[in-house]
Amino acid sequence: MNFKASQIAEILQGKVEGDPDSLVNDFSKIEESKENSLTFLANPKYEKYIYTTKASVVLVNDDFKPEKDISATLIRVPNAYKALATLLEFYEKSMPQKTGIEQPSFIHESAVLGDSVYVGAFAYIGENAKIGDNVKIYPQAYIGDNVVIEDNSIIYAGVKIYHGCKIGKNCIIHAGAVIGSDGFGFAPDETGEYKKIQQIGIVILEQDVEIGANTCIDRATMGETVVRKGAKLDNLIQIAHNVDVGSRTVMAAQVGVAGSTKIGKECMMGGQVGLAGHLTVPDRVKFGAQSGVPNSVKKEGETLLGSPAINVTDFAKSFIIFKKLPDIYRQINEMEKTLKNITNE
Amino acid sequence: MNFKASQIAEILQGKVEGDPDSLVNDFSKIEESKENSLTFLANPKYEKYIYTTKASVVLVNDDFKPEKDISATLIRVPNAYKALATLLEFYEKSMPQKTGIEQPSFIHESAVLGDSVYVGAFAYIGENAKIGDNVKIYPQAYIGDNVVIEDNSIIYAGVKIYHGCKIGKNCIIHAGAVIGSDGFGFAPDETGEYKKIQQIGIVILEQDVEIGANTCIDRATMGETVVRKGAKLDNLIQIAHNVDVGSRTVMAAQVGVAGSTKIGKECMMGGQVGLAGHLTVPDRVKFGAQSGVPNSVKKEGETLLGSPAINVTDFAKSFIIFKKLPDIYRQINEMEKTLKNITNE
Amino acid sequence: MNFKASQIAEILQGKVEGDPDSLVNDFSKIEESKENSLTFLANPKYEKYIYTTKASVVLVNDDFKPEKDISATLIRVPNAYKALATLLEFYEKSMPQKTGIEQPSFIHESAVLGDSVYVGAFAYIGENAKIGDNVKIYPQAYIGDNVVIEDNSIIYAGVKIYHGCKIGKNCIIHAGAVIGSDGFGFAPDETGEYKKIQQIGIVILEQDVEIGANTCIDRATMGETVVRKGAKLDNLIQIAHNVDVGSRTVMAAQVGVAGSTKIGKECMMGGQVGLAGHLTVPDRVKFGAQSGVPNSVKKEGETLLGSPAINVTDFAKSFIIFKKLPDIYRQINEMEKTLKNITNE
Repeated sequence: MNFKASQIAEILQGKVEGDPDSLVNDFSKIEESKENSLTFLANPKYEKYIYTTKASVVLVNDDFKPEKDISATLIRVPNAYKALATLLEFYEKSMPQKTGIEQPSFIHESAVLGDSVYVGAFAYIGENAKIGDNVKIYPQAYIGDNVVIEDNSIIYAGVKIYHGCKIGKNCIIHAGAVIGSDGFGFAPDETGEYKKIQQIGIVILEQDVEIGANTCIDRATMGETVVRKGAKLDNLIQIAHNVDVGSRTVMAAQVGVAGSTKIGKECMMGGQVGLAGHLTVPDRVKFGAQSGVPNSVKKEGETLLGSPAINVTDFAKSFIIFKKLPDIYRQINEMEKTLKNITNE
Repeated sequence: MNFKASQIAEILQGKVEGDPDSLVNDFSKIEESKENSLTFLANPKYEKYIYTTKASVVLVNDDFKPEKDISATLIRVPNAYKALATLLEFYEKSMPQKTGIEQPSFIHESAVLGDSVYVGAFAYIGENAKIGDNVKIYPQAYIGDNVVIEDNSIIYAGVKIYHGCKIGKNCIIHAGAVIGSDGFGFAPDETGEYKKIQQIGIVILEQDVEIGANTCIDRATMGETVVRKGAKLDNLIQIAHNVDVGSRTVMAAQVGVAGSTKIGKECMMGGQVGLAGHLTVPDRVKFGAQSGVPNSVKKEGETLLGSPAINVTDFAKSFIIFKKLPDIYRQINEMEKTLKNITNE
Repeated sequence: MNFKASQIAEILQGKVEGDPDSLVNDFSKIEESKENSLTFLANPKYEKYIYTTKASVVLVNDDFKPEKDISATLIRVPNAYKALATLLEFYEKSMPQKTGIEQPSFIHESAVLGDSVYVGAFAYIGENAKIGDNVKIYPQAYIGDNVVIEDNSIIYAGVKIYHGCKIGKNCIIHAGAVIGSDGFGFAPDETGEYKKIQQIGIVILEQDVEIGANTCIDRATMGETVVRKGAKLDNLIQIAHNVDVGSRTVMAAQVGVAGSTKIGKECMMGGQVGLAGHLTVPDRVKFGAQSGVPNSVKKEGETLLGSPAINVTDFAKSFIIFKKLPDIYRQINEMEKTLKNITNE
């Protein structure tokens, strides 16, 4: 499907600079831009590519001032990255959408399905499950007994949701994610054998939550493990029993959060961060990648780094000296020699 | 379903203090306790909540001495946490249990199934597989050819068990776990291309093993990868080919163990710990979260921390100084200046 | 099935030393060698086991000189490990191979299947998917719309490949891996809510790539996430959107690579390594296990370690001093005292 620069400018309410009839039929990144594609320039680091790009159309910020000639047609908008996001969404929504019930699938006779639902082949919907309107359940997904999924949520292929868990509206759960597996709870008996503590709680995802591929969120021992409104979790993350993830908190891939930890809203975690159990983290705290967090965080909005994690500036200062340690050690030993010479004099 | 405090006390052989007719119909944590629920107090850190809880019944240790009035009915038992575990199990066992063969499922004609087995829809049971009595195989699980699963084990939705692996009795494997995928073995040929080393061994889980969601246990190159009796592995763990995990060893989420490493019994690993290959770890060793272990551990029962991991006390002492490094560096430089002044005098 | 030492020597073009009629019916590791098995000695560390092994046949290097008597029959070959790999492959190829279409499976009427394809029960093959010759798609695998899988590739049970992704020939993808899930891209709107950036790119695996169990490779925001020819990725790895993994690069389990990072060819990463986004890593770089890499690497072939990762030798030198820090701190404080005494004199 071909679009003219002028048509795109109209969607975005932007201004065309160059040929309004330039055609695009694809998107591309500016550093690898292909002919007949649309690209964008938001990060000034990538400006050099705009002067040589083969793309026909480039979205740029209103205040962009080129230093050389540009052969592509420009579309000026207030925020090039947001304009791109708008176009990508426009494109995505123009794609054919899955609907209907593919066969064979397993839908328990007591389950209730809303309007315009998609159920892929080999999907399983258990006893008394409630599926809202416009929900998409891809092939081989497992929806346990008594699970509730609210309107417009997307459950990708092979997602497993254990019995009783609740998924709010507009959620997206990527392939292979597991929601509601047992929390990791054992108590040693007299002989030292670990006896399982039954896990009878549930998982609640509030609305607008996105869960990455193969991420695991354990059910609560009692009560609820909660991921609150608008939180976004990347792939391969571990959320243990009774954890509470605050609204709009964002976690990069492979983060792990141990049992009963409460995380505030609008926190950000880099990849592979680990939090111990029973901690409290206030709002807007940031953890650098691979941080290991053994204690509760006191200060709202603080940034931490390291394992164990400390204030990021303190970590950086100490790490600079860590790299010099062999030199410093030599320096100390020479000083000591000098000192001995002095005291022996 | 409602229970009276007196009925619960009878199950637990505990003593009621307060109204024996108090009704409970749910469990709750003491810090979020709900009306008509039963809760417990084991960790003294949570004692403050008992004086304000809305729960009707609280399990407490025999020796608990309240400092103020408590409105809830108490049940005194020797160990409140264990008593809770008993009640949770009682509750779980009272729930309806899955049985029977759902359709469509795929059971190879040569497979042998025990009594009272559950096979969920879209589960696959391969050639010559042997499934014991009371085994539960949830929907979309894959049981490869020649796999053996002994009595009472539970295989949750979407678990994949490759051909030839053996699962002991009373095991629990959570959704998405993969048992018996190929070990990671390659040898470069003359041109530098990696040639795959075929992995012809198997995985053995002994009895009473629990495996978390999306955990992966690779088959042996030759011989067996073994997880021994009563070991408990949390979610998203990687166990490589030919690893041997000792009896009652416990691993928190996202631990990784490289090939051929032998881990003793009753070891404990915090989250995100990594062990290199071909190591030996004696019994009862503990690794703090995020430890990285490049060498075999010598001392039974030692606790290690850090990456690379060292004795936990040594790590803690060194890390205290690490945080002071910028100050110490200033101190050294001032001392050096002073020294130069002296030697120049 | 029994083989004589002489038959094996013929396959390998090796020389028999001992009884050419010794029978083997299994493989074993030299340290746990079983009767009637074939084992090998490649690593001199394991030489001691050859003098007591119960195995009937041992593959040894041509230049191996025994120090004592050996009861097993030896087969001398130029490279014992490669000879073993050859035998393992010979064994594996002698096993019955899966073929045919099991029922029930879901193959969209527009999908095109090559010759000698295996499609397991409950596998799903979407609209316009193209499956090459000799491809094996195990039970419960999901092949989305427009996916292309070239000849001889193996897709194990429960793998999920999202729409539009391309898998080259001779690839192996292990159970539970997810190829083509959405990249993790969000932009906050005026109110601070995260708005999803639609991910419209794809994933390309070039030929001869192996992907481990439960590993996740996200689709590109625009364009392609690429894993190049002959790269090998272990289990539970995270590859984010628009990453480019170079040819023959090898990653151990639980590695994470953030968005848009470009990794050269023949790089090696230990377990649990993490790379930040938008980095460049030149060819043949090695990262020690658990390294955390916040910046691009400048030097081809360098080895790095630590979090943040630095040159491995520098890290090792600094870490030796880190362990001595408490002693060094005492030393400094004593020196300072001495100095004060001197300056006060």
